[in-house]
Amino acid sequence: MTETNLAVLLRARPQGAPVLSDFDIVEHAIPKPAEGQVLVRARYLSLDPYMRGRMSDAKSYSKPVEIGAVMEGQTVGEVVESRHPDFRPGDTVLGGYGWQRFSAVDSSRLWKISPHDAPLSWNLGVLGMPGLTGWWGLKEIGQPKAGETLVVSAASGAVGQVVGQLGKIAGARVVGVAGGAAKCAFVTDELGFDACVDHRAPLDPALDAACPAGIDVYWENVGGAVQAAVFPRFNDFGRMVMCGMIAQYNTAPGADASGAPAGPNLGPVVRKRLRIQGFIVSDHGWAQYPAFRAEMLGHIAAGQMKVKEDVTEGLENAPEAFLGLLEGRNFGKAVVKVL
Amino acid sequence: MTETNLAVLLRARPQGAPVLSDFDIVEHAIPKPAEGQVLVRARYLSLDPYMRGRMSDAKSYSKPVEIGAVMEGQTVGEVVESRHPDFRPGDTVLGGYGWQRFSAVDSSRLWKISPHDAPLSWNLGVLGMPGLTGWWGLKEIGQPKAGETLVVSAASGAVGQVVGQLGKIAGARVVGVAGGAAKCAFVTDELGFDACVDHRAPLDPALDAACPAGIDVYWENVGGAVQAAVFPRFNDFGRMVMCGMIAQYNTAPGADASGAPAGPNLGPVVRKRLRIQGFIVSDHGWAQYPAFRAEMLGHIAAGQMKVKEDVTEGLENAPEAFLGLLEGRNFGKAVVKVL
Repeated sequence: MTETNLAVLLRARPQGAPVLSDFDIVEHAIPKPAEGQVLVRARYLSLDPYMRGRMSDAKSYSKPVEIGAVMEGQTVGEVVESRHPDFRPGDTVLGGYGWQRFSAVDSSRLWKISPHDAPLSWNLGVLGMPGLTGWWGLKEIGQPKAGETLVVSAASGAVGQVVGQLGKIAGARVVGVAGGAAKCAFVTDELGFDACVDHRAPLDPALDAACPAGIDVYWENVGGAVQAAVFPRFNDFGRMVMCGMIAQYNTAPGADASGAPAGPNLGPVVRKRLRIQGFIVSDHGWAQYPAFRAEMLGHIAAGQMKVKEDVTEGLENAPEAFLGLLEGRNFGKAVVKVL
Repeated sequence: MTETNLAVLLRARPQGAPVLSDFDIVEHAIPKPAEGQVLVRARYLSLDPYMRGRMSDAKSYSKPVEIGAVMEGQTVGEVVESRHPDFRPGDTVLGGYGWQRFSAVDSSRLWKISPHDAPLSWNLGVLGMPGLTGWWGLKEIGQPKAGETLVVSAASGAVGQVVGQLGKIAGARVVGVAGGAAKCAFVTDELGFDACVDHRAPLDPALDAACPAGIDVYWENVGGAVQAAVFPRFNDFGRMVMCGMIAQYNTAPGADASGAPAGPNLGPVVRKRLRIQGFIVSDHGWAQYPAFRAEMLGHIAAGQMKVKEDVTEGLENAPEAFLGLLEGRNFGKAVVKVL
């Protein structure tokens, strides 16, 4: 094996928006798998907004990445060496091995998947954590019904594209919110959403036009001005699925950070009987991963679940791509091809 | 029948806090029950915060009271004349007959109850709509578990006293929030809450002391400063049962009233997986009224459900008592004895 183990480490905790110097790109040793472990070579790394939280030591639902440690992340790749009877070299596996080329992983943290189901990288998006997030949150919290209006922020992103297409399959009117004409055109023309609101233009008239019957379900990925514009438009018994608020990840990363912008007055929650619920897919969702995967493969086969990816070549370019993701510069699910 | 039909009408929609001149006290005719109806004489009228919403024509979950119409409200009383085979003169009945002595009521809007279960007026509180509200919201949304911390605002009020005592029965640590030393002493010494925070004193240190393990369930009756102080103290998977926000009923009565104070930034809803849910008991709860009543009678018999009422004598004094309720001047469930 002549390859080296390229890795991206957390060098410094960002103050506000992360910068490239918050990361270190190093070559370290290829680990030796212990008994029961498997050595995996990553082919694709997923970039996701939650990683911003892991760079911070503010109180959160998960431990931060330590300074000097490998950045956390989901990867898909193949088994190089196995010390567990269930895995063999060449097996395709999905798991959280971090921003590095080679990892020695406990077998309990691996999903063995078929390399023939879909393009390999899709296992990080529509068939991976973001897809599972959208599927679980919509099934358990959002519950859009036929004829209801579902609004999806960050509509062309990894989670948004899944949520909107699942909403269409459920028979809802689906309205995306995305940044710029190109993303909006993609959301309606390729993904089949009924409408898309460009958040760079005034939101109120655009939402009025796109949601003539009000809003029953809002999938929250962004927070900020979009949340403020959506909130007063909820119908009675509206549901707000709190998946993320990327608009403030760089300014208010902590759980109770002072300086976070105010939220909506909650009076309408009583009068309209709204439900606002947050969730983290890792609390629940992976137990349902096989059912989720089977359902999604069915939707893909039926042509009802399209995928757009934003692929960055080379692990050394992951930090730059990640900074772009936090600013909405990606167009589609952000993945890194680990060369 | 020599009695007259004293009634309280809505004369004018309040601007801000209601005033006495928003009401008219009149004597109008005792109605004649139509076929299928029952003539009821009210003995007690319930005063509840939701009535403030009915005085306003801002969009809400229920139609406003028309100008010149009888104020809405629950009463308990007895059948005077019946044109329905299920009811006889002398039967004790519970229903929404408004702020008046006599009403002709459709039988479908009546609950026939035993006059021997409890003092008559309790059917408007612990055994009525406020009790059902507390019972349903805690069972369906709050779901306090043994060892969890439940905070109840307006703790000595009609709903709060039921919620807190049900929380104790469920094994939770129960912390009330109430206005003033007398109410706080009652909440701990008589109702058996573990602690009570006086919202007239600084909230942060008092909540820290009363909730050393954080807050798992918050029963929201008030909004405002109490909500702001409770929100950052939620534990992961906390539930916020949105029953009311009386602190802003006089300033922001509408569903989306401009001028309403900002709410909490919702970032923690994601990170802590919070659930914020509003409900109106009339959507769901009455279908479960018999089960609720049976359970509550059991708690009362077991000495686990104490009751404090604030009784005003005379229907003509109902407006003054209602204004006091909106300012928190009542001490216990506000009822009017209809003489």
